[in-house]
Amino acid sequence: MPDPRFFRRAGPFSLKELAERSGATVAVDGSGDRQFYDVAPLSQAGEGDVSFLDNRKYLEEFLTSRAGAIVVNPDLASRAPTSACLLLSDQPYMAYAHIAKCFYPNTDSSPGIAETALIDKSAKVGENCMIGAGVVIGPKAQIGTKVSIGPNVTIDTAVEIGSGTTIGANASLSHCIIGENCQIHPGVRIGTRGFGFATTATGHIDVPQLGRVIIGNHVEIGANSTVDRGAGPDTVIGDGCRIDNLVQIGHNVHLGRHCVIVSQVGIAGSTVLEDFVVVAAQAGIAGHLTIGAGTMIGAQSGVMADLEPKTKVIGSPAVPVKQFFRQVAALAKMVRKE
Amino acid sequence: MPDPRFFRRAGPFSLKELAERSGATVAVDGSGDRQFYDVAPLSQAGEGDVSFLDNRKYLEEFLTSRAGAIVVNPDLASRAPTSACLLLSDQPYMAYAHIAKCFYPNTDSSPGIAETALIDKSAKVGENCMIGAGVVIGPKAQIGTKVSIGPNVTIDTAVEIGSGTTIGANASLSHCIIGENCQIHPGVRIGTRGFGFATTATGHIDVPQLGRVIIGNHVEIGANSTVDRGAGPDTVIGDGCRIDNLVQIGHNVHLGRHCVIVSQVGIAGSTVLEDFVVVAAQAGIAGHLTIGAGTMIGAQSGVMADLEPKTKVIGSPAVPVKQFFRQVAALAKMVRKE
Amino acid sequence: MPDPRFFRRAGPFSLKELAERSGATVAVDGSGDRQFYDVAPLSQAGEGDVSFLDNRKYLEEFLTSRAGAIVVNPDLASRAPTSACLLLSDQPYMAYAHIAKCFYPNTDSSPGIAETALIDKSAKVGENCMIGAGVVIGPKAQIGTKVSIGPNVTIDTAVEIGSGTTIGANASLSHCIIGENCQIHPGVRIGTRGFGFATTATGHIDVPQLGRVIIGNHVEIGANSTVDRGAGPDTVIGDGCRIDNLVQIGHNVHLGRHCVIVSQVGIAGSTVLEDFVVVAAQAGIAGHLTIGAGTMIGAQSGVMADLEPKTKVIGSPAVPVKQFFRQVAALAKMVRKE
Repeated sequence: MPDPRFFRRAGPFSLKELAERSGATVAVDGSGDRQFYDVAPLSQAGEGDVSFLDNRKYLEEFLTSRAGAIVVNPDLASRAPTSACLLLSDQPYMAYAHIAKCFYPNTDSSPGIAETALIDKSAKVGENCMIGAGVVIGPKAQIGTKVSIGPNVTIDTAVEIGSGTTIGANASLSHCIIGENCQIHPGVRIGTRGFGFATTATGHIDVPQLGRVIIGNHVEIGANSTVDRGAGPDTVIGDGCRIDNLVQIGHNVHLGRHCVIVSQVGIAGSTVLEDFVVVAAQAGIAGHLTIGAGTMIGAQSGVMADLEPKTKVIGSPAVPVKQFFRQVAALAKMVRKE
Repeated sequence: MPDPRFFRRAGPFSLKELAERSGATVAVDGSGDRQFYDVAPLSQAGEGDVSFLDNRKYLEEFLTSRAGAIVVNPDLASRAPTSACLLLSDQPYMAYAHIAKCFYPNTDSSPGIAETALIDKSAKVGENCMIGAGVVIGPKAQIGTKVSIGPNVTIDTAVEIGSGTTIGANASLSHCIIGENCQIHPGVRIGTRGFGFATTATGHIDVPQLGRVIIGNHVEIGANSTVDRGAGPDTVIGDGCRIDNLVQIGHNVHLGRHCVIVSQVGIAGSTVLEDFVVVAAQAGIAGHLTIGAGTMIGAQSGVMADLEPKTKVIGSPAVPVKQFFRQVAALAKMVRKE
Repeated sequence: MPDPRFFRRAGPFSLKELAERSGATVAVDGSGDRQFYDVAPLSQAGEGDVSFLDNRKYLEEFLTSRAGAIVVNPDLASRAPTSACLLLSDQPYMAYAHIAKCFYPNTDSSPGIAETALIDKSAKVGENCMIGAGVVIGPKAQIGTKVSIGPNVTIDTAVEIGSGTTIGANASLSHCIIGENCQIHPGVRIGTRGFGFATTATGHIDVPQLGRVIIGNHVEIGANSTVDRGAGPDTVIGDGCRIDNLVQIGHNVHLGRHCVIVSQVGIAGSTVLEDFVVVAAQAGIAGHLTIGAGTMIGAQSGVMADLEPKTKVIGSPAVPVKQFFRQVAALAKMVRKE
């Protein structure tokens, strides 16, 4: 059970209600009115809990689970423990996500503006915002409604933040326009100067970075990640992108919609990722490239050339996944012979 | 000599006292009462200073050092400069660590709560804490005794911090329980949302992250590192772990006791490291793996499979160290032929 | 046109004046008095704008640009669109940098000390500084003139900051001396404890880190980067170094003058980089090495040995660039045969 000191639970909910909210189907008529109180993993769930099976690695735990209800793919329904009510879904993990949100709707922060927050007179703050202690909001900033801003956050001149967005503690934002319902986590830096300078024989000279960062709706940016503002054009992050912790996004980068950028990835200046690109952890993408829609880049890859849509690459330099593992095998074989 | 503006020195100490506190042995009777005033590297130390030889790269500097006392392995005692008193130890670096701590006991911060710290009425703060300006401590947080919290730190609801722990400036903590005598450095983010979502054809849906971060005693976490809270289970960091700067620890990761995680390493979700695992800089470990006790993972490695205890691997993908260097040599040879 | 909410423009300037300030030459007599109002990329510039051609990838855009003036290498002057005044320079990007700075001179912050800044009585702050809300400045710190310190920054005991330097929001500095005209970006951590401890069979023991961080003039350090203080010697960053975001600099590292360290690079303890070394993104350099002046280290390289001046390496482990690409080709060929 989630620690109640940290997580406030809603509910109970009837099976029928959970089915409706998650798009799942109740397997057996008559069980729809049964009440449920929490979510839990298969191995720990009891009769009041809803659990789920997505990764079939956990099939064994499914077969013996004591969960009161389980979200599961229809093709496994016949193997479920008889004690469990079933919620059938082709996308059990997605259905579970909706159900877990029913129980834990993320309503931690009650609206209010801390006394020690410092909001410039020319800034606008919408209704029902939560603004933490030590927050600094600069001139002409525009904050929508139901925005939550954690303690000690710095929001610079003219920054715009859309309604429903959350900014984590100790983050700092400048030169940016952020959409609605985004989650910007603690320590994120947005709008910092891009790494632009002209090198001469005697040193480097700043090139003013005159663009902004434009972030769409429903974007998540993980803790301590950094997004530089554009050099002239803008840096753009499309709707629904998911960016993990400690990621670097260079100036003028464009991310399409719903890209997934895992921890410690770096994307160099002016590179474009089309929609639904996935970049696994610690990969790097060189500057001025175009990565086609739906492409998947493996962990620790080094991408030095454009990639067609829906390709799968890995390695440094990145090559098609099959080729990479053949190379790995060939190399291992070569030294075994010696 | 350490800059006295930044470091406050204690002492002097007699050789005998330093021997006792460090577990070393005074080589020659009668020198135990001699007083020492500071520590210094072999090449810079004078007659009032204690130095040490650990890495034999520095043997030359040992032979000609003017240090008043040197901590050294007994097998090198006969080659020491005659001007130096000797402190004999099988573990000279460890003995030196204890001696340096005598001179620099890290007592910088005097207890007190800054006027601009904002501590919720329902939070508990133990005696002799140092709480800096701009610190925000949320409802029901529990802070032990002799805890030091740097300026502009954010501590969220119900967080627990054990006695003797230090939290560096501008860090932020949520959803976590931290043990005693830990060092959490500036800018660290603990308890942030894990990177958990369900992907559908139209985008990604948050999966609530309902676990915590549980940190043992004597743990060090370096500047700007990030530790996500568990998805359901907790993220756990065992006693005595040493984590460097800019490290990413994913949700549900378990670190055993005394692991060493060097800078910029990333450990993906649900992976388990047993005790005394060492992960060198910039390495990555994929999710859902088990790394056996005492295993050493080389810098920039990419670990994609479980590892037995006490193995030594390097490379991406990681292979045994010997194999890696054979592969490197074979590849170099192959292109020389061409 | 840069968004006027974020960027304040100066000007207009005559072509002659821009030529003088940038070291370029006006191509045709008589056009020197023409006034210009802004800078813009070749494809977007209009008759009041100054643009430039540096990377010949953009030659097509140059040929058809409607810019009123273009900075260009003399050898391309004859191909310029007839509508454009030309500013001739052997280093067009550098000349453009100077011109862009004329229009955007970076004078955002007006001097003043925020009421909620907390400055210790024993600290000294020079004239014309901008000190933001929530800033904490410790005892005996020394801040020069025209220093700009963003909101929620923490500056610890005895830190020195030279005149004209900018410290970004939410950064924290300790145990360091910073030169003049530096740009320290948001979230940077300087002077944190180096990763130094002695390992024993029962755990790890802190070795006090008794050095400082010494930073020269005109140094830039990117967002959320970390620079540890020395263990005994100092960590040193030479004049004019450019360090990008999320970079780790270990204890005792010495960077010469004008080094360029791109995002997510890690440099391990006690390594020395001579002047004008370039380290591309995500590369790592092991400890106790010397990297010769002017050497270039490719992205994601792993450097495990000293490097002579002006060498070019890439790969992990790093090898000469030519060898690396031969190895890549040989490996690909090997698996194609199979």
